[in-house]
Amino acid sequence: MGENHKKFEDLHRASGFINLNPLQRGGVLSDAARRVVPEWCDGYSVCDFCEGCLDRIKNPPVESFVHETLPEFLGTETARVTNGARESKFIVMHSLCEKGDCIVLDSNAHYTSYVAAERAGVEFFEVEKTGEPEYEILEDKYAEKIEGAKSKTGKPPKLALLTYPDGNYGNLPDAERVAKICHQYDVPLLLNCAYSVGRMPISAKKLGADFIVGSGHKSMAASGPVGVLGTSSEYAEVLFRKSEKYKIKEVELLGCTSRGLPIITLMASFPAVVERVKNWGEEVEKARKFSKQMENLGMQQMGQRPHNHDLMFFAAPIFFEISNRHKKGRFFLYKELKDRGIVGIKSGLTKHFKMSTYQLTGEEIERVVSAFTEISKL
Amino acid sequence: MGENHKKFEDLHRASGFINLNPLQRGGVLSDAARRVVPEWCDGYSVCDFCEGCLDRIKNPPVESFVHETLPEFLGTETARVTNGARESKFIVMHSLCEKGDCIVLDSNAHYTSYVAAERAGVEFFEVEKTGEPEYEILEDKYAEKIEGAKSKTGKPPKLALLTYPDGNYGNLPDAERVAKICHQYDVPLLLNCAYSVGRMPISAKKLGADFIVGSGHKSMAASGPVGVLGTSSEYAEVLFRKSEKYKIKEVELLGCTSRGLPIITLMASFPAVVERVKNWGEEVEKARKFSKQMENLGMQQMGQRPHNHDLMFFAAPIFFEISNRHKKGRFFLYKELKDRGIVGIKSGLTKHFKMSTYQLTGEEIERVVSAFTEISKL
Repeated sequence: MGENHKKFEDLHRASGFINLNPLQRGGVLSDAARRVVPEWCDGYSVCDFCEGCLDRIKNPPVESFVHETLPEFLGTETARVTNGARESKFIVMHSLCEKGDCIVLDSNAHYTSYVAAERAGVEFFEVEKTGEPEYEILEDKYAEKIEGAKSKTGKPPKLALLTYPDGNYGNLPDAERVAKICHQYDVPLLLNCAYSVGRMPISAKKLGADFIVGSGHKSMAASGPVGVLGTSSEYAEVLFRKSEKYKIKEVELLGCTSRGLPIITLMASFPAVVERVKNWGEEVEKARKFSKQMENLGMQQMGQRPHNHDLMFFAAPIFFEISNRHKKGRFFLYKELKDRGIVGIKSGLTKHFKMSTYQLTGEEIERVVSAFTEISKL
Repeated sequence: MGENHKKFEDLHRASGFINLNPLQRGGVLSDAARRVVPEWCDGYSVCDFCEGCLDRIKNPPVESFVHETLPEFLGTETARVTNGARESKFIVMHSLCEKGDCIVLDSNAHYTSYVAAERAGVEFFEVEKTGEPEYEILEDKYAEKIEGAKSKTGKPPKLALLTYPDGNYGNLPDAERVAKICHQYDVPLLLNCAYSVGRMPISAKKLGADFIVGSGHKSMAASGPVGVLGTSSEYAEVLFRKSEKYKIKEVELLGCTSRGLPIITLMASFPAVVERVKNWGEEVEKARKFSKQMENLGMQQMGQRPHNHDLMFFAAPIFFEISNRHKKGRFFLYKELKDRGIVGIKSGLTKHFKMSTYQLTGEEIERVVSAFTEISKL
């Protein structure tokens, strides 16, 4: 162990840039959360106040947050804080399914939905999407797929999953309709709302979902890794079953989950998150206006149109064309944007890329549009 | 959603106190880590630099940390960063065992070892401990228990687990001997080192362990939740198997784990952690001296004597006696210590309690001894 370890101390993240990465736009801490960080960033911190159940800590008010506020916010009867949306999904699959069971999911699902299914030893059947340019999930296909899964495996799927919206195109399918279809087959529905809970108004109850999963670091202005999981009282008994040996510890949560800054920042940002959700209409308008400006430059916004979410996917033949003659090749777009104070579009991409306008100010949007305009003229 | 959410914003942790809680003493951030917190506390942060594999990020140097530095530090061929020691243990059990398999563990194991086994659907056989006052795990009992498990279930245990040290008494069994015994039966050994990795010098290779688990927030000066998991190349293929659909994503890690401040603080504190491990001898001396001072006040230190770890368990009949006549009853000790600027002993305990002197300065130790002396005279 020598001097070369010094490199681990001096870690810097570029600051002062506009970050267009959809997974970063909703995770920026609120001012209130940022203020409490220094007091809570050591190790386990919250556990100072624990008498055996993290979610029963009264001060700081973890108990009322987890057991009252969060279920109300998610439109569920019960909720928990987890280590992330992917961990929430695994908890549901691992609780509901035995190895060899099957589930149905949309083909726009995040990779972690598939990997969680694989970890739970579960076979999956994919509801296909329509082709370019919409890449939409057609709700009625869930009936077909559930029947197909049943006839192929001899038993009904244990779970259906819908990504709401998906993380590529920002499409919002009719979740209520999917829930109705699934329930006709007695299949419970999980909504993966990693890009909606904390950004837009959403209620599991209104949509008829049995499970709702959210991401603290993606969309609830919290320091990662942290997620949320809401469900009905009925399913809570299955998901949050207690240990036989340790009567107060929940097996799927391994006793407790988010034991430090993540849950503290999730709580401290919450009032600001509640407020920003109210302005969702403006966020959608902002995205639509931006989409038009990008299309005026010769790009095409894929996915639902008019778009209903800040996460957008663009086909940009114009940038692909420039990359063929630019000295930086396919890295030119990343480089040119960075030179203009903008990051978050994956290095090396030109032809297709996704981005988000969430929580950008009018001035920032103008800077982004100007940058794309200038670059399109290279 | 109303005004009552404001309570989630104003979260404070008592500061300026000496915290004797063993699980907090090793989690205090290094100065270097504290410095980088403001830059990295938003959401996912590290993912700015990810091209699909978090553990392959080159800048910040996650790749060299995870794939070179950490295995060297743990004495293993390979390592990963996880969401915590409990999650590391579940990864091992879930990878090695089928439902209905069995494992052997020491009866000083942390509750999360049992809960992880329960989550993995695995039966456990406990290696009993000796009685008061040592509560020791006798190494040879592992042979007996492995044979017992085999004759009872008809198949050998898939795993043995040893807690090194345990979190109640701070006992350090002869892990090398346990490893030898387990290997005679072809049973791999997992060492739960949540209270040793990052505090004392330790090498899985030297001890002969197949898996080693550590805790970032408990003992590596990192912001929770974060853990480490090291193993051999042979077992790495099983534990860190890749997804069939997403070839670069590891199934048990659900793609990636610690995606934010936890891994950044783990890295930033690492050089300081390497240095403090070198001073382990002084920490043991400090604990032994403190133990003597407590015994001079009429308490008895349980567990191994002389003690080999900063985590100590005291029987304190003298405080129990005072609690019977103090107006605060059994809460008197917590109250009296807090009045003297000391926290971390569980509220309500008097007769028995655990605590740690890890990383306390000489002056702080003196304050703690004075406080206990004053309180013993009440």
